[in-house]
Amino acid sequence: MPLKQTTRDKLKTVSTATITTALFKRGLRRQMIQEVLPLDPAKPTMVGEAFTLRYMPAREDLNPISVFQDRGHPQRKAIEECPPGAVFVIDSCKDARAASAGSILVTRLQVRGVAGIVTDGGFRDSAEIARLAIPAFHRRPSAPTNLTLHQAIDTNVPIGCGDAPVFPGDAIVGDADGVVVIPAHLADEIADEAVEMTEFEDFVAEKVKEGRTILGLYPATEEATRTEFAAWRKDKGR
Amino acid sequence: MPLKQTTRDKLKTVSTATITTALFKRGLRRQMIQEVLPLDPAKPTMVGEAFTLRYMPAREDLNPISVFQDRGHPQRKAIEECPPGAVFVIDSCKDARAASAGSILVTRLQVRGVAGIVTDGGFRDSAEIARLAIPAFHRRPSAPTNLTLHQAIDTNVPIGCGDAPVFPGDAIVGDADGVVVIPAHLADEIADEAVEMTEFEDFVAEKVKEGRTILGLYPATEEATRTEFAAWRKDKGR
Amino acid sequence: MPLKQTTRDKLKTVSTATITTALFKRGLRRQMIQEVLPLDPAKPTMVGEAFTLRYMPAREDLNPISVFQDRGHPQRKAIEECPPGAVFVIDSCKDARAASAGSILVTRLQVRGVAGIVTDGGFRDSAEIARLAIPAFHRRPSAPTNLTLHQAIDTNVPIGCGDAPVFPGDAIVGDADGVVVIPAHLADEIADEAVEMTEFEDFVAEKVKEGRTILGLYPATEEATRTEFAAWRKDKGR
Amino acid sequence: MPLKQTTRDKLKTVSTATITTALFKRGLRRQMIQEVLPLDPAKPTMVGEAFTLRYMPAREDLNPISVFQDRGHPQRKAIEECPPGAVFVIDSCKDARAASAGSILVTRLQVRGVAGIVTDGGFRDSAEIARLAIPAFHRRPSAPTNLTLHQAIDTNVPIGCGDAPVFPGDAIVGDADGVVVIPAHLADEIADEAVEMTEFEDFVAEKVKEGRTILGLYPATEEATRTEFAAWRKDKGR
Amino acid sequence: MPLKQTTRDKLKTVSTATITTALFKRGLRRQMIQEVLPLDPAKPTMVGEAFTLRYMPAREDLNPISVFQDRGHPQRKAIEECPPGAVFVIDSCKDARAASAGSILVTRLQVRGVAGIVTDGGFRDSAEIARLAIPAFHRRPSAPTNLTLHQAIDTNVPIGCGDAPVFPGDAIVGDADGVVVIPAHLADEIADEAVEMTEFEDFVAEKVKEGRTILGLYPATEEATRTEFAAWRKDKGR
Amino acid sequence: MPLKQTTRDKLKTVSTATITTALFKRGLRRQMIQEVLPLDPAKPTMVGEAFTLRYMPAREDLNPISVFQDRGHPQRKAIEECPPGAVFVIDSCKDARAASAGSILVTRLQVRGVAGIVTDGGFRDSAEIARLAIPAFHRRPSAPTNLTLHQAIDTNVPIGCGDAPVFPGDAIVGDADGVVVIPAHLADEIADEAVEMTEFEDFVAEKVKEGRTILGLYPATEEATRTEFAAWRKDKGR
Repeated sequence: MPLKQTTRDKLKTVSTATITTALFKRGLRRQMIQEVLPLDPAKPTMVGEAFTLRYMPAREDLNPISVFQDRGHPQRKAIEECPPGAVFVIDSCKDARAASAGSILVTRLQVRGVAGIVTDGGFRDSAEIARLAIPAFHRRPSAPTNLTLHQAIDTNVPIGCGDAPVFPGDAIVGDADGVVVIPAHLADEIADEAVEMTEFEDFVAEKVKEGRTILGLYPATEEATRTEFAAWRKDKGR
Repeated sequence: MPLKQTTRDKLKTVSTATITTALFKRGLRRQMIQEVLPLDPAKPTMVGEAFTLRYMPAREDLNPISVFQDRGHPQRKAIEECPPGAVFVIDSCKDARAASAGSILVTRLQVRGVAGIVTDGGFRDSAEIARLAIPAFHRRPSAPTNLTLHQAIDTNVPIGCGDAPVFPGDAIVGDADGVVVIPAHLADEIADEAVEMTEFEDFVAEKVKEGRTILGLYPATEEATRTEFAAWRKDKGR
Repeated sequence: MPLKQTTRDKLKTVSTATITTALFKRGLRRQMIQEVLPLDPAKPTMVGEAFTLRYMPAREDLNPISVFQDRGHPQRKAIEECPPGAVFVIDSCKDARAASAGSILVTRLQVRGVAGIVTDGGFRDSAEIARLAIPAFHRRPSAPTNLTLHQAIDTNVPIGCGDAPVFPGDAIVGDADGVVVIPAHLADEIADEAVEMTEFEDFVAEKVKEGRTILGLYPATEEATRTEFAAWRKDKGR
Repeated sequence: MPLKQTTRDKLKTVSTATITTALFKRGLRRQMIQEVLPLDPAKPTMVGEAFTLRYMPAREDLNPISVFQDRGHPQRKAIEECPPGAVFVIDSCKDARAASAGSILVTRLQVRGVAGIVTDGGFRDSAEIARLAIPAFHRRPSAPTNLTLHQAIDTNVPIGCGDAPVFPGDAIVGDADGVVVIPAHLADEIADEAVEMTEFEDFVAEKVKEGRTILGLYPATEEATRTEFAAWRKDKGR
Repeated sequence: MPLKQTTRDKLKTVSTATITTALFKRGLRRQMIQEVLPLDPAKPTMVGEAFTLRYMPAREDLNPISVFQDRGHPQRKAIEECPPGAVFVIDSCKDARAASAGSILVTRLQVRGVAGIVTDGGFRDSAEIARLAIPAFHRRPSAPTNLTLHQAIDTNVPIGCGDAPVFPGDAIVGDADGVVVIPAHLADEIADEAVEMTEFEDFVAEKVKEGRTILGLYPATEEATRTEFAAWRKDKGR
Repeated sequence: MPLKQTTRDKLKTVSTATITTALFKRGLRRQMIQEVLPLDPAKPTMVGEAFTLRYMPAREDLNPISVFQDRGHPQRKAIEECPPGAVFVIDSCKDARAASAGSILVTRLQVRGVAGIVTDGGFRDSAEIARLAIPAFHRRPSAPTNLTLHQAIDTNVPIGCGDAPVFPGDAIVGDADGVVVIPAHLADEIADEAVEMTEFEDFVAEKVKEGRTILGLYPATEEATRTEFAAWRKDKGR
């Protein structure tokens, strides 16, 4: 089930930091994909449902260069099947010694309307991918062809990515701090809560810049803060 | 397809070291499960076909202690379905911070006639498991319940284990040096070749103990060595 | 506040695996000291309240060999102050490239009636320490004097040890699987619950050895299992 | 005791590379905070006395989101107590899987006149922090709230940060190569020596750019070099 | 034997990603220097023959600051002996806790016409080196003087760098994805093949941007693709 | 220059822990080979001069199984050239994913009178090697043939082993805590000092077992301790 458009729109306005706090309040502490960062930190926030690809260690006899001759090869097939608006998430076993994908495949995803791509390995042609419009997240650049190390084995199954659990359809959000996985059934409520939290954080940031202490302000333990925030929202029309 | 009994018998007499050399000659360099060792190095060599279990990172809301109430839970189901004579191989994402299994499940596998168990994580109740007859291999002891970290997600699919590719049905062999994975279609020929290599290595070991140089002997670059080996085999009836 | 004698006695009869499950049920997932194992896995279970020592990285000018001339040196002082019955827990910053302590200090702890010693670094004189009666747990043997790397800085403050939080007075339990930290206020109830769990696990182990399937038995989802277990306890007088 | 203004001014003109060499000459080899880099490498050099915060692993029951309601929470208190001109240094146990702090707290430090912030973990809101005027150094961006992993436990005690020993009051200097810790009692003399060394390095750099060999020039083993350098300084009025 | 100028020119127009694929086809899977990236990813591609320097762990008594007084010190000597057009490759044992070199030595290499510098450790003065014209590749910035950790021991011998084998005279190519090592005897044919592959990849990239599916196009399993590519080359005059 | 027999005899009676302290007093802090342990911790202490072998990453085309046909292959040649009484030390780049050597080569060393073997990688046939009389030290068992990963490139050159510098001729001592490297020119004086230190440690150990506090005893800051020790030595005839 795809993300609601309103949820998608909300998630684009909040940070992964805020989302992880909302998840933490619900007892979910492992939803951040660890050690994965954007190739271009200046891109807008990435949002989409997870479409997954699972890699396993490549056995040499099963992974000559000729395997890509097969139109049904799971990696190439996945690239063509990932729905527009989704985020393509690859379980590369946290191993960036060979590439998870390169610029041609990532370009194809972009053209197909895919919302972003994430691997817990690395991309080749990283400079070109960074210049594409589609947001991409990895551990580090890695030139060697993925056949050196990875064999694509399964499409759209539950996977691990950077120690986070990823189920197909989970909401994936990525910004300069990395990528977070929101369980599908929580996407709407987390989006709502994160938008509210962001309102308050914006208010706090403004006050702190003006010289206010954080004590009593963040969190808003004083009644005065809560009153002031209400007035601020009204004033700003937020 | 199960291993032939003759192949199984041969593999029990050879070492993982010899097998990796035979695989290396065929261009297979990644078949050793890395950093995994026997809980009891004194056990006989473990041999069996791979039956696999895949773990992914556990999401907290999906993994309360009550999940094991479900008779269909993939981990418990896998324990009951693993065929006698097979080796139970778990992809624990190389993470031993929580247990892959404990002594009760491993005892159940033993009673069911399973040939061994391997994880690239760790076992709890490790002292008890070491005392069982069934050979077990892991990275290190790990007490925390597997729900802390691992969610069983798939049974008998291709997996990675300690950076080695494991396909269901592959021949798994384990000794004091660790565990090697022989692709199913090569099991018979590797078994034959490894038995032959072992004959020669035994001959060489004997000669080296007697004081012979390795030059010309190992490998047998001198005709005299090959003649002497032929005589030795005849003499020993091997 | 020291552990009650009854709690201490109970904890000596249960495993760290069982304890981690009881802690997991209470939402505590990080209480196992990671990657730390006994020097002698055959020793009885270690139980005691935590007495802590904190190391920080050694600055060379502050750590010549002469510092031990000072009777007030925190390491030596801690050795003399650790209460009998306590477990001496060292935060070595998970760094075993130099020793946390050696056989003379550990012998002194034993003579003073200390219940055990744990470091997330390593011990020197490891073979001698393994032969002492006092249980000791570390990552690996490490010969270099601790001044090479560690400076003792604080005694009996809250510390991290192997990624687990340790507060002075917490109940520390160690066996062949490693060392677990029970928050002080939970020690009594965890001890009780773990004893009960162990009763059931012993029953299950017996049944599994007799050939029973784990489904319906472990956990005891079937009424019949619970009835049978009640009878077994009565029968065994447990 | 705060840094002398003259010392502070001198340290702002020299590099961490030069300082580590001056420390090396005094037998101090471990004063570089390892694997920590600036969020914005283009900022001016950071200089200030260390004010420290110690984290330990977070125990779940002690770290619900509500702890920040407490005005005395060590992390929030430390933020308000760190003196203007100081550098706020956090011992995050080298663990960047959760945030050490976020943009609101770092902004508050900036407003309060703090000279910089360093953690051997990671910051959330990293893009915003990079845009602040205050220099910040970490291992990598990390979105999850620090309660996920870290519990603030002690303020202004000696700590380890990235394997370097840090005592409150030590002089902290950070540039594009990372952060170095100068023991407080050496700050003045190291500042003087580093300024002198920098004069010579600038001279050498100029000569090397002009095509001079490094042999005899760097270090200045030839009398001619020393004479030339003296003339160069005179000429430049340095 | 230096690289042919034509080979050098060709290698400057292709990517490390393309080269690793050409090497993979020849059974060479380990030629990428792992975890090493450019200080300035915007520089043109680096090409040159390997001139090597081997570091070993520094013994303190052999590595006082005075060793550089010796004109024959292997590090300084290597800097003066590296041929113009070569790439200076340092085996720093993958350890970036101290510097492999700093800006003065790298400037000297640039003035001498050296084509680039690579270490599997780190550089000090990293911001200055990034601004030089000469391309430089490392793991991360590292301020401490190399004497802290590294002792230069051998010049122009076979070494390991980032897990890749490097023989003097091998062709070294570096771009934003990192650095690849082409065995000397394969440099000409790899250059030719990579240029051809790049032609095709450019064609594919153009078609993918136009909306074409990758199936049948990449690789060119359909006759139509091959015909179209031939026409495209003719048209473009490539 | 071989070790004096008297020095060799003395070193056999002292521990690596004591030796590292004697080295620490001389400013040598990095002489312990890190993370390397005996295959059989019960063996007597290993002592001998270093004879070294350097491995580099194996390039696939240079390392087919047939290379051992060459009598001049550096690994095989080194085995035959290592002097009796020496310790064979291998720089395996701290990589145990393939074997450094196996039981046949180690047996040959034993027959030739070599005093021991050390690698910072791993041995295959580890159970057999553990049963040989010759002491052997490694990181962990590793079955794959060394050609998978390692290429022997140099004999008896200075190397790194487990982050320690090893020069040919250095005195190598190994026990249950691991292996330490004594610079050749210090071997005699370290042996003398370590024997003296061991006398005192034996005295202290006896007193501590009798219930004495360590304060004033260890180190012997009280005159009474020194007098008592003198009497103890006289009494024991040591």
